[in-house]
Amino acid sequence: MADQQKMVQSVTSRDEDFAKWYTDIVKKAELADYSPVRGCIVYRPYGYAIWENIQRILDAKFKETGHENIYMPMLIPESLLQKEKDHIEGFAPEVMWVTHAGNEKLTERYCIRPTSETLFCEHYANIVHSYRDLPKLYNQWCSVMRNEKTTRPFLRGAEFLWQEGHTIHETADEAMEETLRMLDVYTRFCEDYLCLPILYGKKTEREKFAGAVATYAIEGMMHDGKSLQAGTTHYFADNFTKVFDIGFTGRDNTKQYPHETSWGLSTRLIGAIIMTHGDDNGLILPPDVAPVQIVIIPVAQHKEGVLDAAYALRDSLKENYRVKVDASDNSAGWKYAEYEMKGVPLRVEIGPRDIAENQCVIVRRDTRQKYFVKLENLTGEIAAILEDYKKSLYKKAEENRAARTFTAKNMEELEGIFAKTTGYVKAMWCGDDNCELALKDSLGVTSRCIPFEQESISDVCVCCGKKADTMVVWGKSY
Amino acid sequence: MADQQKMVQSVTSRDEDFAKWYTDIVKKAELADYSPVRGCIVYRPYGYAIWENIQRILDAKFKETGHENIYMPMLIPESLLQKEKDHIEGFAPEVMWVTHAGNEKLTERYCIRPTSETLFCEHYANIVHSYRDLPKLYNQWCSVMRNEKTTRPFLRGAEFLWQEGHTIHETADEAMEETLRMLDVYTRFCEDYLCLPILYGKKTEREKFAGAVATYAIEGMMHDGKSLQAGTTHYFADNFTKVFDIGFTGRDNTKQYPHETSWGLSTRLIGAIIMTHGDDNGLILPPDVAPVQIVIIPVAQHKEGVLDAAYALRDSLKENYRVKVDASDNSAGWKYAEYEMKGVPLRVEIGPRDIAENQCVIVRRDTRQKYFVKLENLTGEIAAILEDYKKSLYKKAEENRAARTFTAKNMEELEGIFAKTTGYVKAMWCGDDNCELALKDSLGVTSRCIPFEQESISDVCVCCGKKADTMVVWGKSY
Repeated sequence: MADQQKMVQSVTSRDEDFAKWYTDIVKKAELADYSPVRGCIVYRPYGYAIWENIQRILDAKFKETGHENIYMPMLIPESLLQKEKDHIEGFAPEVMWVTHAGNEKLTERYCIRPTSETLFCEHYANIVHSYRDLPKLYNQWCSVMRNEKTTRPFLRGAEFLWQEGHTIHETADEAMEETLRMLDVYTRFCEDYLCLPILYGKKTEREKFAGAVATYAIEGMMHDGKSLQAGTTHYFADNFTKVFDIGFTGRDNTKQYPHETSWGLSTRLIGAIIMTHGDDNGLILPPDVAPVQIVIIPVAQHKEGVLDAAYALRDSLKENYRVKVDASDNSAGWKYAEYEMKGVPLRVEIGPRDIAENQCVIVRRDTRQKYFVKLENLTGEIAAILEDYKKSLYKKAEENRAARTFTAKNMEELEGIFAKTTGYVKAMWCGDDNCELALKDSLGVTSRCIPFEQESISDVCVCCGKKADTMVVWGKSY
Repeated sequence: MADQQKMVQSVTSRDEDFAKWYTDIVKKAELADYSPVRGCIVYRPYGYAIWENIQRILDAKFKETGHENIYMPMLIPESLLQKEKDHIEGFAPEVMWVTHAGNEKLTERYCIRPTSETLFCEHYANIVHSYRDLPKLYNQWCSVMRNEKTTRPFLRGAEFLWQEGHTIHETADEAMEETLRMLDVYTRFCEDYLCLPILYGKKTEREKFAGAVATYAIEGMMHDGKSLQAGTTHYFADNFTKVFDIGFTGRDNTKQYPHETSWGLSTRLIGAIIMTHGDDNGLILPPDVAPVQIVIIPVAQHKEGVLDAAYALRDSLKENYRVKVDASDNSAGWKYAEYEMKGVPLRVEIGPRDIAENQCVIVRRDTRQKYFVKLENLTGEIAAILEDYKKSLYKKAEENRAARTFTAKNMEELEGIFAKTTGYVKAMWCGDDNCELALKDSLGVTSRCIPFEQESISDVCVCCGKKADTMVVWGKSY
């Protein structure tokens, strides 16, 4: 018991050292453990269960929007990866190479997939012949490897879990529609289920995906004001499909090339949840993806009827919620600290006095607000509290973002803001790569995106002062 | 249309060339496609959806029996793989080695996991300290790589999808109980959901898993009389836990080593389903894992009310079944052939005459039996037909197995049987590796398992004639 309390107390304060606070939470909430493979983590049951909930919800959304799941090999022959020039240039420095099978040297190296555009294209070339075969709307849940220099659990890893959608369409319009549709699916998922306010828009040329014509992203602002790119969707036009010769016979009987998209979202989202909602007592989980939504703590559980009442409560809730009774012999204080660390949204306490009053006590993880609820009203009350809990997580995150969002007309203003704080700065940009690079070198900030909803902050580029009519949101990022 | 009919007609006959029939079905039912990676397939949507259904059912069974999912890195450092001597000996010849990250040579090679005992042990060593931390009941859904010389879709591949359970327990008894419990979970799953009659028992020393003390297996007999090992469970005692120094403080305050199990089941099961139930018209799928359980074919769909009736039927069924309407402009004959190839359990036809009679026609995939069913009785009738369909798939497979199961008292009888047919032969075995090897060399048969339910076929080993009291089931295998 003493150990456990010490464990909770020993979490680094979030405002003192955000990075250390983060890794403390990852370890102490038992989300992940380090592994003997450089840059790779063990996704522990509690962390993996969050991912399973994310998968379940998103997979249903993908299927509702007409997508089918498939599974491709985890290896890519070197010659295949090299087919599209920009793509190989982007990924070559970070792929892991397989050179031997048992004792035999392979005649051609394979890389472990960093992403699977090339494999999907090769498959599409086999199965698409006519406009009647289009569109193909495929998705794959898998892990990928990218040999990142610096890694952090969930945020950046040599291996991570994700989904990658790959679709091909008869026309460019359809492909662009799909690219934006999936950006919207991602945005709605993050806002409605994870309570993460999302900034979305187009990436600049410098920040786009290797081989894409256009990349769109959803960005979340973390508690410390840094941005986390939480998902991207890409429009390829017919760049890859020409290279891979995925020709099809069109409605007019001529040979045409389909237009392609891809989109991905990964276990980074778990990092986003931690860094947006968590506090000095641990995780705070959005109910829709919490492995345990309600923990029931029997108070004075040795007294007659208490455990029975706790299990009866569980049974009345388990059809609608992921609910757990903790009847271990740890003290109540120990249990409270443990489930706060694990971010369980609601704690329900029930003891002899509650039973006598036909009530229980509900405590919210986010605000620690207490509710005394009559048992006959329990289901309705819990639904209402969770609804409010979700709104309140979202609102708190949105307030943080609003307080950290600024505008800058020129370099002086921009420098002034980043000298004092971290956040988003809306400023105009001329479109020149060099201006982006200059801001990165001098301030460590990058273009997060070109929001669809544009504002006119000034007439000139924040960096070079030349005429500019594009508003970019700038920030530091994970 | 002509193409599609030709496609169906061109399936090789099952009794003429079983191997070619198999690959025809895999291609034409669109279960898998070849890939540019040697020995690896593309799991196409229809094949992958079968696996998703298998996962969903099994995952619930694992969770019911107290297991949690986790995810481990896909790579294993060479030094870690080498820790357990028998284990590395068994797997070294077939692992794929990663030697470079980008342009840099790694200081230590990684192999792509062929199985993850070593990673689980390393993790357990980190998190298990006291008997209070036990048991750990973990499972992982992932893909693994083993560089097999000859590969066939689903049956044997360089990469395959599977689940691997890894558990550690305070005592040997608990670990052995778990090993047998999971063998039972596998058996019940195969028999109750996939309609596959299962032979289960212990593997001989020669056939056991590299590093295990004992291996148990479930075996299914395919239509051609060959056996397919469909899943295995392993008991390790404290072999690995000592090597990995997973010590824990026991109830008596002494240092002890936990006892370990592992168990796995893979996409081979899809091969088992094809080869047990399929016929010359294509796949025959067990309803519980069929991606589409009922296909509704509107007859004379251009006539008023037909499509509406078809969609109304779908809506009345979709809560309980995976159901699809095919309103494409292909002919009815084309559609019938297509869904027979794809093994959809029930076809429901509805046309103007049926509507007038307030009925529809149900046709079973397995027997092609027709049922004229009043719409008000539809739900009940479908449930009854599917129940009978499942029993009938199981029975047919069981009859095939019974007809191909023999006993042999000596080599002459054994040779006689395998000269004429393929199947299971029950025969006594003295326990000597050399007798197993001799049967493999001379007849190409191996010990499938030592069934829990023993019979006394004779007093002497079928091979060497020495005293023997163990009955083994012998057979050819995939």
